[in-house]
Amino acid sequence: MNFFSSNFKLGILGGGQLGKMLLSETRKFDIQTYVLDPADDAPGALACNKFFQGSLMDFETVYNFGKKVDVLTFEIELVNVQALEQLESEGIKVYPSSKTLKQIQNKGFQKDFYSRHNIPTAPYKRFTGISELISTLRSGQMTYPFVWKSAEFGYDGNGVKVVRTIDDLENLPETECIAEEMIPFKNELAVIVARSVSGEMKTYPVVEMEFHPEANQVEYVICPARIDAAVAEKARSIAIEVSKKFDHVGLLAVEMFQTNDDEILVNEVAPRPHNSGHYSIEASYTSQFENHLRAILDLPLGKTGSKVAGVMVNLVGAEGFSGNVKYENIEKILEIPGVTPHIYGKKQTRPFRKMGHVTIVNEDMYEARNIAEQVKNTIKVISQ
Amino acid sequence: MNFFSSNFKLGILGGGQLGKMLLSETRKFDIQTYVLDPADDAPGALACNKFFQGSLMDFETVYNFGKKVDVLTFEIELVNVQALEQLESEGIKVYPSSKTLKQIQNKGFQKDFYSRHNIPTAPYKRFTGISELISTLRSGQMTYPFVWKSAEFGYDGNGVKVVRTIDDLENLPETECIAEEMIPFKNELAVIVARSVSGEMKTYPVVEMEFHPEANQVEYVICPARIDAAVAEKARSIAIEVSKKFDHVGLLAVEMFQTNDDEILVNEVAPRPHNSGHYSIEASYTSQFENHLRAILDLPLGKTGSKVAGVMVNLVGAEGFSGNVKYENIEKILEIPGVTPHIYGKKQTRPFRKMGHVTIVNEDMYEARNIAEQVKNTIKVISQ
Repeated sequence: MNFFSSNFKLGILGGGQLGKMLLSETRKFDIQTYVLDPADDAPGALACNKFFQGSLMDFETVYNFGKKVDVLTFEIELVNVQALEQLESEGIKVYPSSKTLKQIQNKGFQKDFYSRHNIPTAPYKRFTGISELISTLRSGQMTYPFVWKSAEFGYDGNGVKVVRTIDDLENLPETECIAEEMIPFKNELAVIVARSVSGEMKTYPVVEMEFHPEANQVEYVICPARIDAAVAEKARSIAIEVSKKFDHVGLLAVEMFQTNDDEILVNEVAPRPHNSGHYSIEASYTSQFENHLRAILDLPLGKTGSKVAGVMVNLVGAEGFSGNVKYENIEKILEIPGVTPHIYGKKQTRPFRKMGHVTIVNEDMYEARNIAEQVKNTIKVISQ
Repeated sequence: MNFFSSNFKLGILGGGQLGKMLLSETRKFDIQTYVLDPADDAPGALACNKFFQGSLMDFETVYNFGKKVDVLTFEIELVNVQALEQLESEGIKVYPSSKTLKQIQNKGFQKDFYSRHNIPTAPYKRFTGISELISTLRSGQMTYPFVWKSAEFGYDGNGVKVVRTIDDLENLPETECIAEEMIPFKNELAVIVARSVSGEMKTYPVVEMEFHPEANQVEYVICPARIDAAVAEKARSIAIEVSKKFDHVGLLAVEMFQTNDDEILVNEVAPRPHNSGHYSIEASYTSQFENHLRAILDLPLGKTGSKVAGVMVNLVGAEGFSGNVKYENIEKILEIPGVTPHIYGKKQTRPFRKMGHVTIVNEDMYEARNIAEQVKNTIKVISQ
């Protein structure tokens, strides 16, 4: 198959920042792309060959879009899976497949999948809704604390809540959910696995998500993780196992907990480029976006090792600011060697909205981490 | 000034591969761009915010385009300078300036400029045309061999010819030209200087252009150059001197000869991102394109050092092939670690047309150089 400067067309469902960064690689290779997104000013509306505005959850819209392309991929899990199934049955290549996506979209299915395949994960129970969960609590079959997770449509901390008393369940939606045992952990880790159509596999180094000591929010993604080689190897081999079991194609980001006694538990996966791999644009031999593209086009995978250490800081909208965005002090961080801001192109900021990220690369990982803190304390996403 | 996700508009004259690679950086920063190019399928027609088709040499076209933007830059020297002068007089910021461009566009002016500023360069004579050159030869005031160079409109080896006998002058155009003494040299080197509006300067490491032993064509650009530190420092300081004297803003690529006795002679300059800096996308902390953008927007310049060694191979159309392009064996080179092809997006190949380039990065420069040879012998730009 000839992809480069040819009539081949790749379809991307979703034109958010992940789609936008993927387009940077399709431009590099001159591969034609069509993008579908509900917002006509989506970050990925530019740099594709053709942009279509429409709902990702609507069967007809996704189906009609898919019929126009040779290979279809997505940058977001919230897409109409029935349309993907229909397209596959008509011979359109969809990577990752609708089957992989279905097993992942619903957190209940995802947890069952881990259990079924002996993949270590925190103990959990599935519920049809809050009412059922409350009955179970009242019957004494469950104890506090636990983590409530909405089975579907959760992202970036939405749809997740630590529950310590019955009052914490108030105002939670009556949707399918899981309750997960709270396991104390030392580190939150992630491994991105790339797997091509023909089954070639490569893993990126284990990264560490460093949390803010007070706010329960990832502050830094650090590559390589500051962990023992043995723990890293364990995390890596579990990630490979998960990827094989899902039989996925493209990227699979596997988020894991390192428990206090150095066990690795799989938290959740994302079948696409992932926030924990953004550092790879500057730090890795091959960025996660390029490897996603290589994987779904069944091209040889690129080297996943790092040229230098990388730390990533998310740029989220500051509290108390909404409206036309302004990146305060961005000039100041540009003065620091090895600092690269990525501005996603969302015109409007609001509290905690992901507006961009900054990558810090350095030969020395601890130096990169220090600079990351300086960056975090300097730049501020406000409104004009 | 607020550039990021704002109403600010950068205009780029020319939408070739250099414009295209610059757009990759404007997308990263979400800076709005307008592009003007004669070809509606130019590589840079995609990923800009607005594309305009039109001649770069036509006063009205360039002037009208320039009036729509806040800062104007170019990716090619062959643009209408009078329009730039008019725009500057009306307050549009043009970087590099029309004054810098004028001194560079004409090779006669450029050589005079070096002489005037005591910048080492090969001895030369200027002529209004071939007839005047022939008279001078006949009068015995000049000897063979020498290098004939067209004063204007030369690029990529066009407009340059080694003259050993009077017969070599046949078929050369009756245009303004220079005749340059042929000085034997060991190496052809280049230094890219970035200089911002407020005068901050940074240089990229000295690179080496390795020539094919038979064909007189650059085969590899190697960073860092395989030369003595003292020679590298001399090349670097001459490049800085040239940049200061031109008072240029943006990037200035300074091409130089290292003579057999280690003198450095300036060959020519290009006031824009340059083929000799393409390696920087993968190998440097900050790519030449990002630093061009930072320089013309008066942002702090990024670190110009390298993460790893880089070697660049141009992908030119193979002899004997014209028509719809095909990149034969591109999958084979993608198998090699650290190899990144850049496909410019020109649909039609023809012999020697620049269709793309491949960057090879590696911790070890000699290893990168070996892989580059393997790449060169594997991939072939043919027609379908």
